[in-house]
Amino acid sequence: MAKSWATFGVDLHLEPTGSGLRRGLTDALRDAVRTGRLAPGTRLPSSRSLAADLGIARNTVADAYADLVAEGWLTARQGSGTRVAERAMGGPSEPPAPHHAPEHGRLPLDLTPGTPDLSSFPRTAWLKAARRALAAAPNDALGYGDPRGRVELRTALAGYLSRVRGVRADPERIVVCSGFAQGLKLLGEVLRDRGAGSVAVESYGLFVHWNILQRAGLRTVPLPFDGLGTRTEDLSGVPAVLLNPAHQFPLGGALRPERRAAVVDWARRTGGLVLEDDYDGEFRYDRQPVGALQDLDPEHVVYLGTVSKSLAPGLRLGWMVLPASLLPEVLAVQRTGGWATGVLEQLTLAEFLTSGAYDRHVRAARLRYRRRRDALVAALASRAPEVHVRGIAAGLHAVLQLPPGTEASVVRAAAWQGLSLQGLSLYRHPSATTGPLDALVVGYGTPPDHAWAGTLEALCRVLP
Amino acid sequence: MAKSWATFGVDLHLEPTGSGLRRGLTDALRDAVRTGRLAPGTRLPSSRSLAADLGIARNTVADAYADLVAEGWLTARQGSGTRVAERAMGGPSEPPAPHHAPEHGRLPLDLTPGTPDLSSFPRTAWLKAARRALAAAPNDALGYGDPRGRVELRTALAGYLSRVRGVRADPERIVVCSGFAQGLKLLGEVLRDRGAGSVAVESYGLFVHWNILQRAGLRTVPLPFDGLGTRTEDLSGVPAVLLNPAHQFPLGGALRPERRAAVVDWARRTGGLVLEDDYDGEFRYDRQPVGALQDLDPEHVVYLGTVSKSLAPGLRLGWMVLPASLLPEVLAVQRTGGWATGVLEQLTLAEFLTSGAYDRHVRAARLRYRRRRDALVAALASRAPEVHVRGIAAGLHAVLQLPPGTEASVVRAAAWQGLSLQGLSLYRHPSATTGPLDALVVGYGTPPDHAWAGTLEALCRVLP
Repeated sequence: MAKSWATFGVDLHLEPTGSGLRRGLTDALRDAVRTGRLAPGTRLPSSRSLAADLGIARNTVADAYADLVAEGWLTARQGSGTRVAERAMGGPSEPPAPHHAPEHGRLPLDLTPGTPDLSSFPRTAWLKAARRALAAAPNDALGYGDPRGRVELRTALAGYLSRVRGVRADPERIVVCSGFAQGLKLLGEVLRDRGAGSVAVESYGLFVHWNILQRAGLRTVPLPFDGLGTRTEDLSGVPAVLLNPAHQFPLGGALRPERRAAVVDWARRTGGLVLEDDYDGEFRYDRQPVGALQDLDPEHVVYLGTVSKSLAPGLRLGWMVLPASLLPEVLAVQRTGGWATGVLEQLTLAEFLTSGAYDRHVRAARLRYRRRRDALVAALASRAPEVHVRGIAAGLHAVLQLPPGTEASVVRAAAWQGLSLQGLSLYRHPSATTGPLDALVVGYGTPPDHAWAGTLEALCRVLP
Repeated sequence: MAKSWATFGVDLHLEPTGSGLRRGLTDALRDAVRTGRLAPGTRLPSSRSLAADLGIARNTVADAYADLVAEGWLTARQGSGTRVAERAMGGPSEPPAPHHAPEHGRLPLDLTPGTPDLSSFPRTAWLKAARRALAAAPNDALGYGDPRGRVELRTALAGYLSRVRGVRADPERIVVCSGFAQGLKLLGEVLRDRGAGSVAVESYGLFVHWNILQRAGLRTVPLPFDGLGTRTEDLSGVPAVLLNPAHQFPLGGALRPERRAAVVDWARRTGGLVLEDDYDGEFRYDRQPVGALQDLDPEHVVYLGTVSKSLAPGLRLGWMVLPASLLPEVLAVQRTGGWATGVLEQLTLAEFLTSGAYDRHVRAARLRYRRRRDALVAALASRAPEVHVRGIAAGLHAVLQLPPGTEASVVRAAAWQGLSLQGLSLYRHPSATTGPLDALVVGYGTPPDHAWAGTLEALCRVLP
């Protein structure tokens, strides 16, 4: 049972057991001060009375108070007790170390999908690659360059994608972009220039991708799905389709072989274009990943990839492997200006790939995420046997299917525990005809290693 | 008098005096081999006879031959003399070091404007800043972040722009972008969303900028100009104007005070928007630079800057300082996706700015470019007194006004000398009503230091 901590009006329930309690209490208090729920000057209860109220050790409360005094959020004076610092709202006089500050709008514990464990970004190896790349770069690499991106990176990617994802890649047909989103934006404009009016998408996906296509003047038409995943047998009436064949985001399935074939058949028959979003293709845990759909028909499939899941979204690096027939149209849009990607990151990634550092990093990350996924599945089996994990053992997220009608209340309960958790409904296309499903999209890749156990514990607590 | 080097059919004239002769000869020969003008297997004249033909020292020719043998373009065998290597066309077996290879489509000597001296990019200082920035970065900096860009960079820019360019800058109103072009693209879409149909531009400028606006659905309407520069007294009928107030590109003038005032008056009266492209505001040589126009009315002027002239275009880093009223519209377009800029470069530039490295680099670059400009002006005075230098002593380029009708022939003559030189006509808006002027746009910032003297010499040779 969660106890209400209403003594001084904090919208917060705390479960007085489990690991990470001191940190949870500290984070919850800090958040309450930061957001103004605890006003400057407010006197806090004594550590003794709050401990009694919460049924926890007095030292835990005293330690949390001391942490927050040290960070400047609270003040402690002999005779006047512990108070919220006068300058606390909007930040204490000494700002807390940035790694304590959760990202804007996020809670202390975070299972928001879409971001890898940023604490495991290989900073040292990346810097080493940057140093070697910059030392080797010709001067003219620093100028306005090839609109497709640096040849060093395109060459490295061609080798890597062919080896690891079975992509038929030629450096001449690769275009580097500032992440998947920019690539999709560029392709959206190409399709608009071709006179396209719509693009088929999956029923569950990312609003930002649909927005990008809509911004380019294209309607997004959701495909139906069934228990086996997205149905691709009827693509009539659209000139293009956006798919996650290897690992659907968020539902988590792989496109079935006959449905892969149906897409490629449709593309060949109609001259349609398949946009293959292979956002986390390196991360499959139960067996070798299915190769890229692009390999089935490189002339009708655009393969899109990114380092956002394998390294970090902040790098803003992605790539497209284009059909030969599409390349001139893509370059024509690029030549209209404003599309270029920074070359130093490109050269660094090229060095990172060719030196083997990328493979090493991916292997380590795969092991880490696989363990987290295993721990998640094991915890659910023992603590929430009603909750069913959908999809394949892959990627950085899992979909937890909930009893019908419970999604919203579980998400709300998580927020009360200081846990950012997203319901599947956030990812449902507004025109989707299949569903809705009640489920959670759990980004188990998101927490740093040290927070993972506590975050999993918090998740288990809120599950039905 | 240039001597024809027709002995073996090379379309090349060489002047057998001046510094950099060995390098010039090496470059010219390499280019002839690379482009196939000297076919594989062709036997070259002996160094003795070529030296006699050109009237230069035999050692100079022998050294040039030796360089090219070392690079793999030529072969030298006892008894068969020096020949073009069999595999030379399309590249020797060992590719030449990349820094020897001129950028795609450029000639060995290069006065194309728009690029700083890339050989002076502060690689060591940049890497140092990258190391410090990455060490200090919180983990969440590597995630999907604030659409405006990293706060570290926006804060550093606010301080710098206020101090150096008189910009009224607030980090909250700065939006980081992947270079000026992306910023302009974003603003073009904002204007289109507002229902704008056209933007006034200067009669001379960059096609890529006009293309960006046209791609956003906006007509570009050139403003007339006179001997004092762009005329701004009649801006009726347009909702926005794109200007280079500090240093017009390419014409080279600064917008006169009464014309600056007229623009701001127009903007206030009509709610118009001024897009201030301050691409090289740090580089003024005769006196303190005129401050940013934005300072006159931050609510009607968008200030746009970039590191493309001060550091390197390849970094793809620029910024906008926005009127408060425009910020929500810019963020709304950004939220449609595909606009983000890599964070590591942003954090590195923030560190580079706050550590003082940027100021030091700019000071050194200013001195270097000023010396080049002085050398250019002095060389013209003595060797081409008919050629008049237009504009102010600023920036990385100069406009050399030519006798009417001579521009095309001078550009052609330069190409024959292996010198990339651009005529002003390349920069004239197709609907401009003033002009045309016969002139050259000389990018004296482009050559590396070691090539500058030889490049200037080549320029003097082709001037009337």
